[in-house]
Formats: sequence, structure tokens, C-alpha cells
Amino acid sequence: MIEKEYQVLDKGFIRLDGYYADDISVVNSARVSYGKRVTSVNESDKNLIRYLIENKHGTPFEHNFFRFHIKAPIFVAREWFRHRISSFNEMSMRYHSPDLEFYLPETLRTQVGKPGAYVFEDIDYDSHYTEQSRSLMNDHFEYSKNLYEHFVETGLAKELSRIVVPVSAYTEFYWSVNARSLMNFISLRNSPHAQHEIREYAIVVEEMFKTVMPITAEAWINNERVAP
Amino acid sequence: MIEKEYQVLDKGFIRLDGYYADDISVVNSARVSYGKRVTSVNESDKNLIRYLIENKHGTPFEHNFFRFHIKAPIFVAREWFRHRISSFNEMSMRYHSPDLEFYLPETLRTQVGKPGAYVFEDIDYDSHYTEQSRSLMNDHFEYSKNLYEHFVETGLAKELSRIVVPVSAYTEFYWSVNARSLMNFISLRNSPHAQHEIREYAIVVEEMFKTVMPITAEAWINNERVAP
Amino acid sequence: MIEKEYQVLDKGFIRLDGYYADDISVVNSARVSYGKRVTSVNESDKNLIRYLIENKHGTPFEHNFFRFHIKAPIFVAREWFRHRISSFNEMSMRYHSPDLEFYLPETLRTQVGKPGAYVFEDIDYDSHYTEQSRSLMNDHFEYSKNLYEHFVETGLAKELSRIVVPVSAYTEFYWSVNARSLMNFISLRNSPHAQHEIREYAIVVEEMFKTVMPITAEAWINNERVAP
Amino acid sequence: MIEKEYQVLDKGFIRLDGYYADDISVVNSARVSYGKRVTSVNESDKNLIRYLIENKHGTPFEHNFFRFHIKAPIFVAREWFRHRISSFNEMSMRYHSPDLEFYLPETLRTQVGKPGAYVFEDIDYDSHYTEQSRSLMNDHFEYSKNLYEHFVETGLAKELSRIVVPVSAYTEFYWSVNARSLMNFISLRNSPHAQHEIREYAIVVEEMFKTVMPITAEAWINNERVAP
Repeated sequence: MIEKEYQVLDKGFIRLDGYYADDISVVNSARVSYGKRVTSVNESDKNLIRYLIENKHGTPFEHNFFRFHIKAPIFVAREWFRHRISSFNEMSMRYHSPDLEFYLPETLRTQVGKPGAYVFEDIDYDSHYTEQSRSLMNDHFEYSKNLYEHFVETGLAKELSRIVVPVSAYTEFYWSVNARSLMNFISLRNSPHAQHEIREYAIVVEEMFKTVMPITAEAWINNERVAP
Repeated sequence: MIEKEYQVLDKGFIRLDGYYADDISVVNSARVSYGKRVTSVNESDKNLIRYLIENKHGTPFEHNFFRFHIKAPIFVAREWFRHRISSFNEMSMRYHSPDLEFYLPETLRTQVGKPGAYVFEDIDYDSHYTEQSRSLMNDHFEYSKNLYEHFVETGLAKELSRIVVPVSAYTEFYWSVNARSLMNFISLRNSPHAQHEIREYAIVVEEMFKTVMPITAEAWINNERVAP
Repeated sequence: MIEKEYQVLDKGFIRLDGYYADDISVVNSARVSYGKRVTSVNESDKNLIRYLIENKHGTPFEHNFFRFHIKAPIFVAREWFRHRISSFNEMSMRYHSPDLEFYLPETLRTQVGKPGAYVFEDIDYDSHYTEQSRSLMNDHFEYSKNLYEHFVETGLAKELSRIVVPVSAYTEFYWSVNARSLMNFISLRNSPHAQHEIREYAIVVEEMFKTVMPITAEAWINNERVAP
Repeated sequence: MIEKEYQVLDKGFIRLDGYYADDISVVNSARVSYGKRVTSVNESDKNLIRYLIENKHGTPFEHNFFRFHIKAPIFVAREWFRHRISSFNEMSMRYHSPDLEFYLPETLRTQVGKPGAYVFEDIDYDSHYTEQSRSLMNDHFEYSKNLYEHFVETGLAKELSRIVVPVSAYTEFYWSVNARSLMNFISLRNSPHAQHEIREYAIVVEEMFKTVMPITAEAWINNERVAP
């Protein structure tokens, strides 16, 4: 059975709001040519799915649907929204004043790798600074929240009040996507090249995907996670 | 209850293979900002849907899914596949030799309007020619089928044998689409500017859409069918 | 002649980095059917462009290209990146520490309209608060910049250091888009419904578009700026 | 210098109608972060392009533009139009009666491979049948053309007259596309899995691409032609 809601980071979540997806739809859409529809996947169908993944026949993986409800920091959402072959609706701070919450990292990490390498290892930050830095972050977030609320109270337009809010603030959005685009998202974001924070979300998305479309997921993983 | 399969033209059909769509998803995705989800649509929600349609806020209509299985002549399919914000898988005649069938129009119509006007009325074709022309078409289709099958039998590659097949031949495809793109399709294809044959399909698609998302459909129709 | 760079807001800009677009390409792509190409637009071509706009034949407006280089606050960039039918590359603060700059509004405005109305008039904010609020903003931005730079200096990964930065910070990006998608952008963003700040950019984009494709722009404006 | 027009198949062509593309745009859009623009590509820039290709950073390859004018058989155009991330305008036979021409294969090939394998070798067709089959094709095309013209002459609507036309008939279209989508097209269509006829076009497209963006093309070819 599928677990539909996971907590991610300190105050975020992913909720699988709904889906209409299975491995059978891949087989039926790839075989529209043969005028027959199946209701369960046999060994020959598994081979077909493998074949489609390996040979980058991507369209049969588009005839399905996942809708997620996500709470994530703005800097994570900004990376997420770059995935154009999907649909987004986000909470707007132009009309609505949310009760602001912020991502405060549990542990801190230091810069590794050089510009252009785009690879970062999670190496511990100098322990001398860790608690001091977390404390500075936390104070800054508290102050930002108070400043934002003060502006709203004085009647400043919400769309202007929000400009003082740091990108660690949590936002919420709906995300609808098909399996082909989902595999591409996971390939890029559950990767050592991705920022740790979005990767935490991508790991959960991958878990959900594997539960809903296990045969497709297995073929894709065996193909080095290259999306078709 | 929704009627899931309709015959269209002389030998075609549309089958609603599956869907995951309702009016509520529009409300919930538009109101992600307010952190509350509804399970039925009230009067204020109806106003919201109307507002979104009239003001071209299109994204809340993307968080849903329709999958159709369609049998249509090639010349209709060619117009259909121009709708890029959706997913298609078509029967391929590169690997498969279908039992060819052809669209033979019941009545014939004549050219009205001048190039650039792009408007055609369905005016009856000279009755003197009607039966003769239908008969010529029918013979041509029969001959094309025989020629195609002859080529396949002699061992000619299917992908080459097919090049003699006229665009009246029926093909089959899966089409997956969200409500926003669906409304755009219907606006353009259930229109007096559209060719009669694709319009017959668009009329059925509209019926199905109205049944699944009645409040959205009503708001869109009241807005002169302009897709948001 | 086209002015290629405009300052926008207090520290931003739009630069037309390059383009390959004219009104003739609309005519030639719409008339591919007639096997003739024109090199200048005559009266009948103008009528064709008007006809295409009014009847929502959008594809002939896609055979052209604009590439912009933009500097804008993050909260503006976030709205901009919602326009999926276009291409973006943004400065990344994962690998690079920019010299942070912030948008400080010259004048402040108050909230007008109720949630759901999505219409805001620019009404002056209580003058009692104006200078105090601008001063609080400015101090907050200065502190954010210092905090960010302090974190980078202590060796905290840039991708983590950035999370304290407010959404008023300027970012830079490249944006490539065709005229059809551009008209849609301007319709939505040079509008009384749009936030004042992105509208300032959209006004400039519209000026540039009018200079490059004057006949298309005129037909589109006469059609109430509805994108085809 | 770039050769802008090539004949393809017996009566088709590809004409590079215009482009706005170079390797430099890749470097500048990938490095928007460093606030400097280059006007020629040095060794370090070449390494960056290689890096982007190998690591599937695709967006920097989208800030450019190619517009082609193509004449190809309908069955080739149908495969081409499946590439959704690009723009098409095709000659319409609803309003226009072209002087029909047909693709008649010089040599014929036989079916190799089994359904599901999707691989075909070009093996000569039984020479006993070759001339007979080509002759049957040719006669069928001639008859189709005459039948079509007869229908138009009797006043049958062009959009109905055309339904007797075989998919070997040549059509014309404009195609606009960026380098990222172009590489994806070539990967799939200049491939042993593709039908011979569309491959002939893809080979020409690849030649043109290599001339316009040689460094990008080289990096992509060295990466086994996998589009980023």
C-alpha cells in the first residue's frame, strides 16, 4: 500500500494528492497498434517496458497522471519550477499572509568542489561555527517574520511586504506531472549533483513512483535512471 | 453517468479510456494559498471557477487528466496531432499491417468561401455527381487496400507498402490531455471554422468533458468557449 | 531604430541580447501553402496578420526568436519563470557569490481589493509610515547582505549561505521566447492585474516587441491584446 | 560557408530559411552567473560545452533558433510533427489545391526484424518484383492525382477531395526549433531505428547543425549523440 504523506526537511511535506497511473497504461499505449488491451502485465509486457526505456521511446510513459501537494522552502521551489513539462499552482503572497515558517538546517555543510565542477560533497562545516551560524539564521528568520507582519499591519500591500522574506521561507504548491517527466525530475534531483535539500524531496517522489509503477521504475533504474 | 464510448463518422469511435478529473481539483489548486481543501463545490467556489475562466488564469485547470482512445481517419488525426500540449501514441504501420478501413463520406459538400476566409458552409454538392463520386472514392479505397496487401505479401517492407494508402484510412491512437488543453482543442475544433469531420469528434469530446467537469464547462461556455 | 537596453526599477535592466524576428516571417509561414515567399509586407499581408490574430491562428507567430538578458528582483523572476513556453538560464547562487543588490521601492502602496478580486489599485501608503518602512527595509537588506557574506567567509556552502537572502535581491537571467509566447506574457504582465514591479518590465518588453514586429503588434493591440 | 538548400529523396528538399545560433550563446547563457559575456569561444569554453552535454544541462542549448522550409512526403511529415518542442506551419489542402507530386522510391527494401524489435536492415527486395511494384506505385499515384483533380473540378470541397490522396504525396512546411530540440530530433531520426526516408532528411539537418554550431555538435557526437 502506498504511504501518501511524508515529512521532508524540518517543516515540509510531500503529499500524493491523487494519481491515475499504472504499468499497464504503458503497455496499452505502446501497443495501440495491435488493437488489444491488457489488464495485467505479463513477462512479455515487462520486456516491452524495458525495451521502451532503453531505446528512449518516451511517449508511452506520458499516459498517466500524478498530483502532489508540496510544502518546501522557496529556494527548493525555485529549482522545482524549472521543470516546465508539468503543472504548478503555488500559494500567492500577493493576496494572502501566511503564518511564515522557515527552513533551519539541522547540520551545516561546507563548500567543496570548484565552480564548473558542480559537484559538492556533504562535508561537515567547521564545528566552531555551527551553532553560532544556526543561531544567526534563526534570529534573522524571526526578525524577517516580525518585519513582514509589521508591514502588513501598517497597511503596506502584501505583495510589497513580502519582499523582505528570505528564500528559506516555506511555500506550498500543487504539482501535476506524468511519469516521463517525473523520471526526468528524479534523475536530475535525486542525484549527487543536486542540492541536498531538493534531493530529500526527490527521494520521496521516487519512493511513491516505485510503488505506483514498479515495473517501469525497475526498468528505468536498471537503465541508470536515464529518463526515456 | 458518463457514456464512455461513442461511434463517430462511419467507422470511427472515441472511447474515454480513463480520467482523473473533477471541478473540485480546480478550486483546491487555485486556493492552495489558503491551506484548506474542499471535497464538494459550493456557490463561492463556482464564482471562483467563473472568475478564473474569465480572467485567463489557466493553470488551475491543468491538475487533472483525461485519456482517450480514438479511431479516426488519418486526415483527422493529422489535425489532432497539432495540439502539442498533450500526449499521443498512434498505431504504427511500420511494424504492423492493420485490416485497412476507410472513411467514405455519407454526403458530399462543395467548396464555399474564398482562400483566406477559412470559412466553409456545408452546402450540398451537385447531386448529379454525388453517387458517382462516392463510388469512385469507394473503388479507389478498395484498390488501395488490395495494392497495400499485395505489397506486404511480396515481402515489401510494411513501412514502404503503406505509402500507397490514402489519408482517408482509419488509424487509432491514445490521447492524454488536461482540461485546459482540452478546452483549447474543443474551442478550435468544435467550431464552424473546423473541418466537418474533426468537428464530429470534438462534439463528442465536449459532451464527455461537460459530464466530468460540469461547472468548469458551464463557465467556459458562458465565456464564449475561450479557453483560459 | 531599436533601443536595446533599458533600466527598470531602481537597479534592474532589460537588454535585448538578440532577435531574429519580423512581420514577414508571419506571412511566409502562414502562406507556406502557396509556395511563394515575400520580402516585404503589403496591404493584403496586413489583413492576413489581422485575420490570424483575430481568429487565434497562433502558430504563424512562432517562427521567430527574441533573446533577452534581464536583471530583476527574485520575486519578479519567480513570476516570470511561470511562463513555460520559453527558455531560461539564471545566475546560480549555488556556485557563485554575487555582489548582492536589493530592490528598494521608491514609493510604497497599500493593499486595495479583497482576496479573490485580484485587483489592486496603486493607492499611496500612509505617509506617516513611508520613510520609516523604507528605512526598515533598507537596513534589513544591508544586514542580510552582511550575514550572507559572513556565512560565505566562514566556509558555509554558498547554496546554504544564500537561504538568508530576501526575495528583493536582484538576480540575472537569459530569456528566449517567440512572439506568440511573448504576446501572452505581455497580455498577462502589462496588465492592471499584474504586480507593479513585473509590469514595469513588461512595458519595456512591449516597446521592444512593437519596434521589431510593428504590424503584428498593432493587430494584437487592436484585438484587445489577446494573444493568438 | 553554409549550404542552405539540399535536395532530399526524389522530389523533396530542406532549405535553412534562417537561423540565429552559434556556440557562443551556449557559453553566455550558461555563465549568466558570472556577469561577463564573451564574443568568441576559447578552450575553457569548449570544456564547459562538453561538460553541459555530458551532464545533461540542457537549457543553455535553447537560446538559439533555426527555421527550416521542408518539402517531404506526408508519411515523413507525420513522424516529424511528433516533435512537440518546436513550431510547425504546413501547407493546407483545405483551401489550396497543390500540383500533387509523389515520392516514388528508387530502390525497394524488404521487411527485416520482428515486431517489437523495431530494427530494420535495408535488404534488397526480391528483384523479381521491384520494377513491377514501382510501376504499380507510380500508376496508383497518377490515378490518385487525376481523381483528386477531377473531384476539385466537379466542385467537391478541397478538404474532401484530398481524402483520396496517398501518404506518399509531398507536402511543405516551416519548422522552427532550438538546438536542444534539434539534437533530440537528429538522435532519434538519424538512427538505424528510423525509417530510411526521414533519416535522409535528418542527415541533412545534422550537416547544417554541425556547420552552425560546430563545437556543440562535436561534444554531442562524442557523447554518443545523446541530447542533453
